[in-house]
Amino acid sequence: MTQINENYLKLKAGYLFPEIGRRVKAYSDANQNAKIIRLGIGDVTLPLAPTIVNAMVEAAKEMGSSAGFHGYGPEQGYSFLIQKIIAHDYTARGVQIAEDEVFVSDGSKCDCGNIQEIFSLDSKIAVVDPVYPVYVDTNVMAGRTGEVGSDGRYANIIYMPATEENNFEPDFPKEKPDIIYLCYPNNPTGMVATKARLTEWVNFAKKIGSIILYDSAYESFIQDPEIPKSIYEIPGAKEVAMEFRSFSKTAGFTGTRCAYLVIPKDLKGKTKAGEEISFNSLWNRRHTTKFNGVSYVTQKGAEAVFSAQGQVEIKEQISYYMQNAKLIREGLATAGYTIFGGTNAPYIWLKTPKGLKSWEFFDELLGKAQVVGTPGSGFGPAGEGYFRLSAFGKREDVISAIERIQKM
Amino acid sequence: MTQINENYLKLKAGYLFPEIGRRVKAYSDANQNAKIIRLGIGDVTLPLAPTIVNAMVEAAKEMGSSAGFHGYGPEQGYSFLIQKIIAHDYTARGVQIAEDEVFVSDGSKCDCGNIQEIFSLDSKIAVVDPVYPVYVDTNVMAGRTGEVGSDGRYANIIYMPATEENNFEPDFPKEKPDIIYLCYPNNPTGMVATKARLTEWVNFAKKIGSIILYDSAYESFIQDPEIPKSIYEIPGAKEVAMEFRSFSKTAGFTGTRCAYLVIPKDLKGKTKAGEEISFNSLWNRRHTTKFNGVSYVTQKGAEAVFSAQGQVEIKEQISYYMQNAKLIREGLATAGYTIFGGTNAPYIWLKTPKGLKSWEFFDELLGKAQVVGTPGSGFGPAGEGYFRLSAFGKREDVISAIERIQKM
Repeated sequence: MTQINENYLKLKAGYLFPEIGRRVKAYSDANQNAKIIRLGIGDVTLPLAPTIVNAMVEAAKEMGSSAGFHGYGPEQGYSFLIQKIIAHDYTARGVQIAEDEVFVSDGSKCDCGNIQEIFSLDSKIAVVDPVYPVYVDTNVMAGRTGEVGSDGRYANIIYMPATEENNFEPDFPKEKPDIIYLCYPNNPTGMVATKARLTEWVNFAKKIGSIILYDSAYESFIQDPEIPKSIYEIPGAKEVAMEFRSFSKTAGFTGTRCAYLVIPKDLKGKTKAGEEISFNSLWNRRHTTKFNGVSYVTQKGAEAVFSAQGQVEIKEQISYYMQNAKLIREGLATAGYTIFGGTNAPYIWLKTPKGLKSWEFFDELLGKAQVVGTPGSGFGPAGEGYFRLSAFGKREDVISAIERIQKM
Repeated sequence: MTQINENYLKLKAGYLFPEIGRRVKAYSDANQNAKIIRLGIGDVTLPLAPTIVNAMVEAAKEMGSSAGFHGYGPEQGYSFLIQKIIAHDYTARGVQIAEDEVFVSDGSKCDCGNIQEIFSLDSKIAVVDPVYPVYVDTNVMAGRTGEVGSDGRYANIIYMPATEENNFEPDFPKEKPDIIYLCYPNNPTGMVATKARLTEWVNFAKKIGSIILYDSAYESFIQDPEIPKSIYEIPGAKEVAMEFRSFSKTAGFTGTRCAYLVIPKDLKGKTKAGEEISFNSLWNRRHTTKFNGVSYVTQKGAEAVFSAQGQVEIKEQISYYMQNAKLIREGLATAGYTIFGGTNAPYIWLKTPKGLKSWEFFDELLGKAQVVGTPGSGFGPAGEGYFRLSAFGKREDVISAIERIQKM
């Protein structure tokens, strides 16, 4: 009988969101009249903006005509989209990125999960704790870790705790990592990195010879103009960092699927023998061998995000969500909760009351307020005692949720 | 400096299709007036069928409404699509498949490339030679092979030659593989497996304890009712085989991106300690951790493929391509070429004339007839001296290409 990849057996039970789904289903099966409000999984709720829909409708019609049909596109994405990405997200912020440094994909989850393939299996990763589970789980699956310990941490991963004590700003690791996963604005804490702090990270990575995988999927929620949106706003970052970006939260593409990964050609790794190799070329090989490009219709929708009218429409959506965040922050503060994040990010991170464990608070919130959030411990041991609420709900649901929580 | 995955350095130069692209670009840059006809990469050319376009247009509009918006869908695909797949592709052929045995994805290239992750790195693979390069390359990247030898074959892969001598029907391997990749109708040879032969494969895999990865991306081109479309038409196949299917060639989705993978729950692997584990559960973990579902709009388009009118429309397209195949077969036979395939598959496999090597014939065909095909050697050493033409061109191009080749 064929042998399996036994690294999968090291994984802790259920990926976080399926587990939430199971508990919510059990509750709603048992309480069929309950009106459950979901502020858990962080899925957007506003419809696609009209300009995006129009572009997709036109693209679908094009696909039905001989002249407009598109078969296989470039695996890396169409130039029409890459050029817009570069102009809007980089050149406009003083960052020079070349077309062949951008790889369009069907999601940052996929990119974050797949990127580890181009590193040596001996590489040691460092993650902030709490952290988006995909960074960790995909390295467990690949075999870069040992077993999970009783503290909920996998052997051979460097964890960098981010808690109230350090203002959710993790210290540099003492042990040397090869790969550092950073996410700002942060999922799940909703905290951001200042330019000064990000500069320290870039310098630290350069000094110790690590690379930074910088997940900036939530950059469009940054309100403070002093906060960098891209790590490449930091001098020297192209030599140490890849950057992950997504249309999912920026433009409501969670069900439409488009993202991109920037790998500057200056970013190098080495062989055991010491030869320097560009990660850009390795990823290009990976991307062209295992991926076949994003749907043309989707890429035309993504392109429309960058049109003048598209920008107006998505900025309205982001304002809407950030107004939700403000309501949640204020409403929960009034109810006596200790709140973090939610000013430059769509996530509110709160301390569970009465010293409840995260999943205990999950069950209490579901049972008493019929509100679904995300247990902080699902993001790592240092998230225990915290809880994430997302600002992506509909306004009326957010208001109801706050009222219900205040009554609890 | 961070260490790279050195397995990538074992890969032979350029993935086949980018290399073709480079040569064609060089030729067309040097011969700007040349009208090049591409029968190489096997990309479809007919536009999406009207019923599919309508479904996608409606879905895009839905996404722009509060009531119809879809955020994250199930990573495994929507039930509305999975149910249609099962009813049409399996139940109608007497095969029982459960909903949670089907995983919708954005392409068979991705599925074929990613599936190897759930097997032990010690697993030994067997491939037909010539073969779709993705099966081999993704195992090289993962580290299941040694270096490539002077014969163009990687160490630690079992190659099963398919040549004129054995009527392109490879013998069972003498050495025991853990994983056998089979593709019928075959890419690149265009040959099919009879029910008798496929039964032998299933029994062989069962006897030696291997699993079969069965790529049936081209099943819709089968004209002979006696040829199985699914490996599950063979009794016992659910215990030994996964099946890969795609909308790319069936419904012109190469630029739209939708496919699916069937993993029966009866298909088991084992740990080193001998514990049996379902591959379905391993893949479910992989798929939910590293993938975020296919675009809703695309899934609605795929669903429309199964409507009565959708079926009429895509069958017309397939007839069109198979008529192309017939023209190519007959036209090249008239010109004195030795031809295989092309009766139950959209690929014609021909012997290069005058003992030319595959890439030599590629250059000659490009230079003298401005026709692009695919060198057989790009699919493996046993493909040397053969050449693949695809039937996916436009009719007028196919006719011109034949005329030009006849004049050569």
